[in-house]
Amino acid sequence: MPIVNLVPENTDEPRVRAIFADIKATKKIDFVPNIWRALANHPEHLELCWTRLKAIMQPGKVDLLTKEIIALAVSTTNSCRYCINSHTAAVQKLGLSKEAYGEVLAVIGLYNQMNKLVDGLQVEPDVSPDPSWK
Amino acid sequence: MPIVNLVPENTDEPRVRAIFADIKATKKIDFVPNIWRALANHPEHLELCWTRLKAIMQPGKVDLLTKEIIALAVSTTNSCRYCINSHTAAVQKLGLSKEAYGEVLAVIGLYNQMNKLVDGLQVEPDVSPDPSWK
Amino acid sequence: MPIVNLVPENTDEPRVRAIFADIKATKKIDFVPNIWRALANHPEHLELCWTRLKAIMQPGKVDLLTKEIIALAVSTTNSCRYCINSHTAAVQKLGLSKEAYGEVLAVIGLYNQMNKLVDGLQVEPDVSPDPSWK
Amino acid sequence: MPIVNLVPENTDEPRVRAIFADIKATKKIDFVPNIWRALANHPEHLELCWTRLKAIMQPGKVDLLTKEIIALAVSTTNSCRYCINSHTAAVQKLGLSKEAYGEVLAVIGLYNQMNKLVDGLQVEPDVSPDPSWK
Amino acid sequence: MPIVNLVPENTDEPRVRAIFADIKATKKIDFVPNIWRALANHPEHLELCWTRLKAIMQPGKVDLLTKEIIALAVSTTNSCRYCINSHTAAVQKLGLSKEAYGEVLAVIGLYNQMNKLVDGLQVEPDVSPDPSWK
Amino acid sequence: MPIVNLVPENTDEPRVRAIFADIKATKKIDFVPNIWRALANHPEHLELCWTRLKAIMQPGKVDLLTKEIIALAVSTTNSCRYCINSHTAAVQKLGLSKEAYGEVLAVIGLYNQMNKLVDGLQVEPDVSPDPSWK
Repeated sequence: MPIVNLVPENTDEPRVRAIFADIKATKKIDFVPNIWRALANHPEHLELCWTRLKAIMQPGKVDLLTKEIIALAVSTTNSCRYCINSHTAAVQKLGLSKEAYGEVLAVIGLYNQMNKLVDGLQVEPDVSPDPSWK
Repeated sequence: MPIVNLVPENTDEPRVRAIFADIKATKKIDFVPNIWRALANHPEHLELCWTRLKAIMQPGKVDLLTKEIIALAVSTTNSCRYCINSHTAAVQKLGLSKEAYGEVLAVIGLYNQMNKLVDGLQVEPDVSPDPSWK
Repeated sequence: MPIVNLVPENTDEPRVRAIFADIKATKKIDFVPNIWRALANHPEHLELCWTRLKAIMQPGKVDLLTKEIIALAVSTTNSCRYCINSHTAAVQKLGLSKEAYGEVLAVIGLYNQMNKLVDGLQVEPDVSPDPSWK
Repeated sequence: MPIVNLVPENTDEPRVRAIFADIKATKKIDFVPNIWRALANHPEHLELCWTRLKAIMQPGKVDLLTKEIIALAVSTTNSCRYCINSHTAAVQKLGLSKEAYGEVLAVIGLYNQMNKLVDGLQVEPDVSPDPSWK
Repeated sequence: MPIVNLVPENTDEPRVRAIFADIKATKKIDFVPNIWRALANHPEHLELCWTRLKAIMQPGKVDLLTKEIIALAVSTTNSCRYCINSHTAAVQKLGLSKEAYGEVLAVIGLYNQMNKLVDGLQVEPDVSPDPSWK
Repeated sequence: MPIVNLVPENTDEPRVRAIFADIKATKKIDFVPNIWRALANHPEHLELCWTRLKAIMQPGKVDLLTKEIIALAVSTTNSCRYCINSHTAAVQKLGLSKEAYGEVLAVIGLYNQMNKLVDGLQVEPDVSPDPSWK
């Protein structure tokens, strides 16, 4: 059970209503996901979160599928159940095949292992990104 | 300082030598990164790690740049200094622009935030991936 | 289902009985929370945990509400479901308003993001706390 | 060494200049912290981050010292070196005594332990926050 | 509900069948645990995971019970519900008493606390392992 | 640089002096490790931490080497640099061979991977520890 009541989709609060409508239009879905209904208990924070997410999660120099794959990698590393569901559904909808998903998961697992081997052995960095990166 | 001595590149141990050569050939680099030299203190584990990494990190249904971006997302979420250096250098070499990197980092930051908002609010999943995924 | 049986409140074990009574008296509640009943399978560890928690979670230079807010920030960052429930209920009981809770959650989310941006960019510290702190 | 060059404080980029000036004015400091100079490589992301941080980190229903204590609890749980330095310096500046800091740290340590005991024992929640929270 | 369908034990896919049989024989169990049935959607990854796990989790210089205790310590620190169940059942089966389990859990909790105190105080290492370790 | 000054070993504070002496006697070392000198800024917390650590880290149903291995597994999973140094030095001193250490590290890496595969696939538990555990 969520910690706070979920604000109903047909709330009277005008700022929340406008954001709910924008969420559905932007994501092309016909319901407001629970996380936004929970955040709506604090309209200012809802607005800060949605505005930023909308700005970051549009296609730019990086395409949307890659962005959702990154979201899945972060959410899996953080073991966030709701987010793993949500982003796995998103990559499905964007056309990632089950076989490609298997590869994504394999890479996620691999580096969760390698990160800890590196930290356990306390290996010092031996390559540096090029500072003149363009 | 690493926890264990780094095995020198010109070691006499034949199994380790062969893997070191394969690492340089596969990654097209002219030195053996420190993590592999540290792991080489236990040749069987070195072999298990390298064989699997090599199998997973080849282009498949998912291209190599996307795989390195996933590795960067995982390593950043785990705050692994050596790994962040290594995978940032890798995405640079594979042609990710600084602007695209900025977007990747923004997505990583965003979902490290959203994951915790979701967990803090204890929101229940409201979408499920399609089980008949192909 | 818990990994171990929960020790019943009316157990015959005298050391556990005394601690259970102290937990209810100290926290002004009429039941023994599950975590203490689970820990009671190992009475010595129960005692070590409860004694220390009781010493730390009394009002001192920092008031109890702030201490519970810290507990909530830690538990949310660690995504501990039971603990998030427990500490959210505690801050409610201590009078934190829903709006103030919204601000607390916003700060928790914000720094889970900023922490990862900092680690991803590998920024070096540029301020140091004053070592002559009194 | 940071992954990207730090944008100099006297950059010509007008959007970045304005944000740098706002950071110094808002935080009442005479330099731009490294994290903002690193983020400035991607001005849009810099703006999204700063705007939101500024909105969240102003005194509201929760005072600024408590907000910085939450930031410290999150950063310590995430082991973010730069952030721990920065937020410890902030709580010092806001007047938290060394003794009070000791209590804050004790609570952070305590719940990092308790969270794992709870997860290890897989204890089910036994209290729920009041959903009619006002 | 798992993200992907669980591959049935009596699948026709010969590579998967062989691995399923090997899992049951090696672990001396009469069913295939869900994680392997989920991984079997991507037979190559299943094989990579199982081959390595089998190689690492056999008795060597470190006995199997100690290895399962390490697995439990890692899984508890990562709060992985399925894994905590699985490895707690394993240490039970290998003869760890409830009292000894209580000590294991106490150590896990203790160092999850100490790790964060150390990081919060930013204490520098003062001992180094002996590099000539044999 | 630590966040707080390290309390000198020859401090005049009697409670701290007594604990410092006990640390050296119990651990059979001739200096006080930095973490204890940092914690000593808050003598009550120092005492709570040391008393509990001493009680937990004595040989009981689980031997000391196994306890230090658990400490190493937790510290590596949490990527705590100081703690990894300290506990690796401890297992060395207690006689763990370099080859056995290699196996310990392999198990730590393996389950950091498996934990995330399980969470990513959202596999439900299929075994339960025996509740009548003795």
